[in-house]
Amino acid sequence: MSTNPVQTVDSDPSRHLWMHFSNMGAYAQGVEVPVIVRGEGCYVWDQHGNRYLDGLSSLYCVNVGHGRTELAEAAAKQATELAFFPTWSFAHPRAIELATKIADLAPADLNRVFFVGGGGEAVDSAFKLARQYHKIRGKAGKYKVISRNTAYHGTTLGALAATALSTARAPFEPLPIGGSHVTNTNVYRLDPQAVDTLAEAIQERIEFEGPDTVAAVILEPVQNSGGCFVPPEGYFQRVRQICDQYDVLLISDEVICAFGRLGEWFGAQRFDYVPDIITTAKGLTSAYAPMGAVIASDRVIEPFLTDNNVFAHGVTFGGHPVASAVALANIELMESEKMLENVRANEPVLRGMLESLRDIALVGDVRGAGYFWAIELVKDPATRQRFSPAEGKALLAFLAPELYRRGLICRADMRGDLVVQLAPPLIAGPPHFAEIETILRSTLVDAAALSLPTD
Amino acid sequence: MSTNPVQTVDSDPSRHLWMHFSNMGAYAQGVEVPVIVRGEGCYVWDQHGNRYLDGLSSLYCVNVGHGRTELAEAAAKQATELAFFPTWSFAHPRAIELATKIADLAPADLNRVFFVGGGGEAVDSAFKLARQYHKIRGKAGKYKVISRNTAYHGTTLGALAATALSTARAPFEPLPIGGSHVTNTNVYRLDPQAVDTLAEAIQERIEFEGPDTVAAVILEPVQNSGGCFVPPEGYFQRVRQICDQYDVLLISDEVICAFGRLGEWFGAQRFDYVPDIITTAKGLTSAYAPMGAVIASDRVIEPFLTDNNVFAHGVTFGGHPVASAVALANIELMESEKMLENVRANEPVLRGMLESLRDIALVGDVRGAGYFWAIELVKDPATRQRFSPAEGKALLAFLAPELYRRGLICRADMRGDLVVQLAPPLIAGPPHFAEIETILRSTLVDAAALSLPTD
Repeated sequence: MSTNPVQTVDSDPSRHLWMHFSNMGAYAQGVEVPVIVRGEGCYVWDQHGNRYLDGLSSLYCVNVGHGRTELAEAAAKQATELAFFPTWSFAHPRAIELATKIADLAPADLNRVFFVGGGGEAVDSAFKLARQYHKIRGKAGKYKVISRNTAYHGTTLGALAATALSTARAPFEPLPIGGSHVTNTNVYRLDPQAVDTLAEAIQERIEFEGPDTVAAVILEPVQNSGGCFVPPEGYFQRVRQICDQYDVLLISDEVICAFGRLGEWFGAQRFDYVPDIITTAKGLTSAYAPMGAVIASDRVIEPFLTDNNVFAHGVTFGGHPVASAVALANIELMESEKMLENVRANEPVLRGMLESLRDIALVGDVRGAGYFWAIELVKDPATRQRFSPAEGKALLAFLAPELYRRGLICRADMRGDLVVQLAPPLIAGPPHFAEIETILRSTLVDAAALSLPTD
Repeated sequence: MSTNPVQTVDSDPSRHLWMHFSNMGAYAQGVEVPVIVRGEGCYVWDQHGNRYLDGLSSLYCVNVGHGRTELAEAAAKQATELAFFPTWSFAHPRAIELATKIADLAPADLNRVFFVGGGGEAVDSAFKLARQYHKIRGKAGKYKVISRNTAYHGTTLGALAATALSTARAPFEPLPIGGSHVTNTNVYRLDPQAVDTLAEAIQERIEFEGPDTVAAVILEPVQNSGGCFVPPEGYFQRVRQICDQYDVLLISDEVICAFGRLGEWFGAQRFDYVPDIITTAKGLTSAYAPMGAVIASDRVIEPFLTDNNVFAHGVTFGGHPVASAVALANIELMESEKMLENVRANEPVLRGMLESLRDIALVGDVRGAGYFWAIELVKDPATRQRFSPAEGKALLAFLAPELYRRGLICRADMRGDLVVQLAPPLIAGPPHFAEIETILRSTLVDAAALSLPTD
């Protein structure tokens, strides 16, 4: 491990940089901005030289870990050769090679790759693709999209139609297009008898909206927001049938779940289904360069190959040469260092470590897959009773800064129920899990001992 | 000049890469995909070793020119130190420094920088910002946005509300939010008496829509789509007054016009107005890394600094460390090599060269500013008579591939009237203009001699 760097930041961290989803007023009133200055492997360091285990892979991104010089070198080499050229009526070698590689890794006939700048743009673009796909097939009325409660699918105005979090939507209404939301697969909160028919909610909603109006269903293989909801056995197979029955495109939103997060290249492979479109980003480049992609099946592009039909869409940075080179090097690194195999081998160890926390009074549920896990905190594990909003708020106010102070970056969140989420880099293993356990256990034990406010 | 590289692309260029705004059917039927393999200065090379003058700066992007190793090195250094960390509740040195630098360069009190992934995302984010800004000030009904005819403001579903090109909108309807369009400043096609009151169209539209419903007006300093429409004297000053009168935010969309394209850091400075929000991308990094930004005034952030108000928006890659490092190096290069001064010094030479083409029978108008110009082609320059759609289509079918074949990358376009657009890298000078002139003149002369189809 290298020595701890201490970096002085010359500029006032909160004066000019408008941070995302952040209370800028607090910083303006003197709260210190946490400034991350360096990363290596599974760790990052702040401006004071404090080290943190990056238990969230920098927002589910840095799958190969920090500080990989192979990716830095790939970026520099490409930037010197051809730093940029658009893919509007032109191509360049790295985008062609990356599209070919992705088609090779993707399920079944998902052979066409439309590159964009990130995850939200991928979802926004997939909705546009679904609409035009139906329009040129003579079904101009199919424009609605169905997603699931509490789901997050990005923040462009178009993507917000699918994102089912009112805090992310309300400030920007009126929202576009026909977003419609059905039950998610939070089996911890469901009657066991309801689990087998969860997919039917999608069929019912298609019938309710009118099959002639529904363009697509968008689902994450494991739903992030709400806390790593895994699909019950047979769920995606039934969704696939329903989508086929109603001529509705199935979009697998794999901005988080692809590129090894679940131990496979794509989440759809983990749960054995074939979507029509995959949206992805984050792990595609391990975020060493911004990039997203929409991966479409041969069936989806088919109507765009005749009658001079053109997908009337594009973004300047789509297929960026440097990002493409970084993605190729990133995938190569995952392959050469057998990172997917590492995830598959260690998933039971990570799961076992988290399950071992169930002896703490407030641990209600442990759920997830691969290197993507959530612990749900409850007032009473026996009855699954939730904390009240005031109690939850007080717990969050303790947990989020305290986990960080003790050296663990993870996500303590209440977009739905109260969960702590973990998604370590794919290179992590048992020693990192042990370190996570130490910090998590002590912090959760202390949280359990707090006297919480009554509402 | 280096030797010509010939690069073999191993993969089929058209099988897996879905190119943007491209007729993929043509490539599937055997049309060769132009593959660009290398860039240096103002030139790029294709897969056969042919050299092209990049007269469009790779879609208005590569302002410092191709192959600048300083930017490649900045990227590699940052990727090794900290390749990625989000700006969600965290910051990192390069994003802080870049925000500070941008605030220093931007007009007046535009001091807050919210980083995003590209131009379309910047516009989409600016619309969200405008809406929430009004909502938390108690004006929840202000959500509409006014833009101008033929304008292009990006392709996210949200941005399409402003983009006034039906070819970019129709395939994706129903479109979101209250987009509304007024006259642009195409003075070549306007009654001279109407020019002085062009801004009044915005006032009339605000009155028509209802002042309580309008959130923002979005305008490019020089409107790209339609062909480099410059604002008449006093136009932006009057627009500023109107926006103030109705409590409407003025968004200056400078995805193209900032970072030297008009000889100033921002287009607003060239035309001496102060917007509330600037959207930018492209030249910010010279596209060596994907990045966009929303720059807001102190007045716009003010309501977000109290009462725990949070701009409920974010994107994973916002403020990407490597992109930030590249942007800082890019701006430094523009400063150290005095590129803005180069544009200011040579603008009259470029303009003069283009004006000299007016002796060719089909050159109707020459317009633009800085290194951002359009030539409008007409049937009869004396009467300004347009080509018919069939004639225009035939001319485009000749011009676009022929200019490329002769070694010039520029834009021959008919999103509005028929124009040829030029926007060379900021490092270009008289020798490059002479080369452009040779190719343009010969190609336009040949175009003028074509027998065109009658409708």
